[in-house]
Amino acid sequence: MSNRLGSQTLTFSKVPRLLSSYTIVGPLEGKGPHALDFDEILPDDVLDQKTPEKTERLILEMAIEKTLQQSNTKIEDVHFLIAGDLLNQITSSTLAASTYAAPFLGIYGACSTFAQAMGLGATLLQGDFAEKVLIGTASHYQTAERQFRYPIELNIQHISSNHHTVTGAGVALLGFANQGPQVTHATFGTIVDMGLKDSQDMGSAMAPAAFSTIKQHLKDTSRGLEDYDMVLTGDLGKHGRKMLRLLLSKEGFSGLERLQDGGSQIYGDHQKTGAGGSGAACIAVMGLGYALNMLKSGKARRILVVATGALLSALTVLQGESIPCIAHAVALEA
Amino acid sequence: MSNRLGSQTLTFSKVPRLLSSYTIVGPLEGKGPHALDFDEILPDDVLDQKTPEKTERLILEMAIEKTLQQSNTKIEDVHFLIAGDLLNQITSSTLAASTYAAPFLGIYGACSTFAQAMGLGATLLQGDFAEKVLIGTASHYQTAERQFRYPIELNIQHISSNHHTVTGAGVALLGFANQGPQVTHATFGTIVDMGLKDSQDMGSAMAPAAFSTIKQHLKDTSRGLEDYDMVLTGDLGKHGRKMLRLLLSKEGFSGLERLQDGGSQIYGDHQKTGAGGSGAACIAVMGLGYALNMLKSGKARRILVVATGALLSALTVLQGESIPCIAHAVALEA
Repeated sequence: MSNRLGSQTLTFSKVPRLLSSYTIVGPLEGKGPHALDFDEILPDDVLDQKTPEKTERLILEMAIEKTLQQSNTKIEDVHFLIAGDLLNQITSSTLAASTYAAPFLGIYGACSTFAQAMGLGATLLQGDFAEKVLIGTASHYQTAERQFRYPIELNIQHISSNHHTVTGAGVALLGFANQGPQVTHATFGTIVDMGLKDSQDMGSAMAPAAFSTIKQHLKDTSRGLEDYDMVLTGDLGKHGRKMLRLLLSKEGFSGLERLQDGGSQIYGDHQKTGAGGSGAACIAVMGLGYALNMLKSGKARRILVVATGALLSALTVLQGESIPCIAHAVALEA
Repeated sequence: MSNRLGSQTLTFSKVPRLLSSYTIVGPLEGKGPHALDFDEILPDDVLDQKTPEKTERLILEMAIEKTLQQSNTKIEDVHFLIAGDLLNQITSSTLAASTYAAPFLGIYGACSTFAQAMGLGATLLQGDFAEKVLIGTASHYQTAERQFRYPIELNIQHISSNHHTVTGAGVALLGFANQGPQVTHATFGTIVDMGLKDSQDMGSAMAPAAFSTIKQHLKDTSRGLEDYDMVLTGDLGKHGRKMLRLLLSKEGFSGLERLQDGGSQIYGDHQKTGAGGSGAACIAVMGLGYALNMLKSGKARRILVVATGALLSALTVLQGESIPCIAHAVALEA
């Protein structure tokens, strides 16, 4: 079991790296405090498409195209495409994958998709199964809103605990090279379900999953929070972020100042987005935008990205099920 | 790239094996010609649950429980649980995974889920990432019917080209042992979309994907159809099965008598199930039931299981998208 550490963590001694990546966000995200971290800000969130689902597919394809261009890679040389999204039957990913045909692994991890894809991609590289793996995800405010919550025509306003789905896409090409940010570990989470049922407060439901995976990652790697310049959770939002801090401090962890949260930070307070951003694209664009820029600019040497997912559906909510949550973590080094 | 063969196939020299498995089917499947191949036939398809979704989750949990029991394995000793299903946000799998907590990889491949999970599981074993991997999937006629097609109360009758979703679950534990059926190769498919849009004829849409993956598998492994005692496709059904034969014979492949199709064979002609069975459980129960029994009884020495998936959603059909299809293959040896 040379590639395992402890009970949930895989180690990547062969040094898989990010060869290239591309982030796209919508106009709202482009007015937030992290605007400069993203590669492209869309002029509008429609892009001349007839439906927002078609727009979501398109921005995923745009991000794939640019990621391949940046590393001068042809899709024929990609050994696996790993992708997923929030839509029923992950159709943004499968439709995009029919344009960019490579052996395709469709995954579903809700907003944890990015880390699941990144961890799996690094695993395929470490295990001599692939030399180049493309990973990606996308989400769109309008597609998620009408599928999971309300018809967008109702223009429902945010309450303090619910999230605003990020419109965007994040794609990365993983492979081997002499330089570039490396993926050193992946910790795949178990489902954590504390019995919470409020789909308007997914941050509180997801915080215990983030706690579980962070705790296990630190145990498996014999590290502390201080060993990371930043521990970036996906989209816990303002409530979930607090809860994670509470859980960690109750168990005596120090270094809580290293914690940051993509969802809490992607929008400014003036943007009236409830608890913050969410959606599969949230941690994808914050991870490949903000976190990667920190590594590239030398502001951080080692970052843990912890993507959390609330694995509910509109139907499970109606049927009174609680919300199973999960968090997957990937450790990145400059 | 020691673990790759050709452009899409992975090879498993460390000999991952099926340590145990369990198949459950509903009453209708239990009256079909393969009844004796399944471990358990349900007395009814409700099992005292309030909704069919709750039943689907339950039978997946039952199959997990029995699979673990048979090999005397605790869930704590399982390094990964890989599962997926047809429901929006794969909620049968995520809810079952909150009962059987192991590091969880949620996947979506529609009816190709079984082979995707099996191939990924063998990959994790081959790459020294795990010693035991549990894989599973489930489907239920009523949940799929009302999600993808019509309210079940309408009691819509089958036409000759559409499918009947199999009620059932199939679970397997992969690991290392001195005996038992082994997984020797996995060929992960690319998306194939020939522009077909008729969601009432998924077999015809999926056949070109099965053809693509079989052709690539044979090329990568330098094998012919004759090298397999059986090539078992998932759920092409009566129309799709014909189309696959046509495609293979047009390209000069011999050995077409090795082809069998789970969907075409799981029900008897008298059962009025249209083109045959489909659903994520179809190839799972036929693969872990029928195919495994062939290997165990010595009737077959080598079998290729080719699970096909139609990656549509109710929404993509309404929005006029064509149906992206995929096929993943795993080679099994006695």
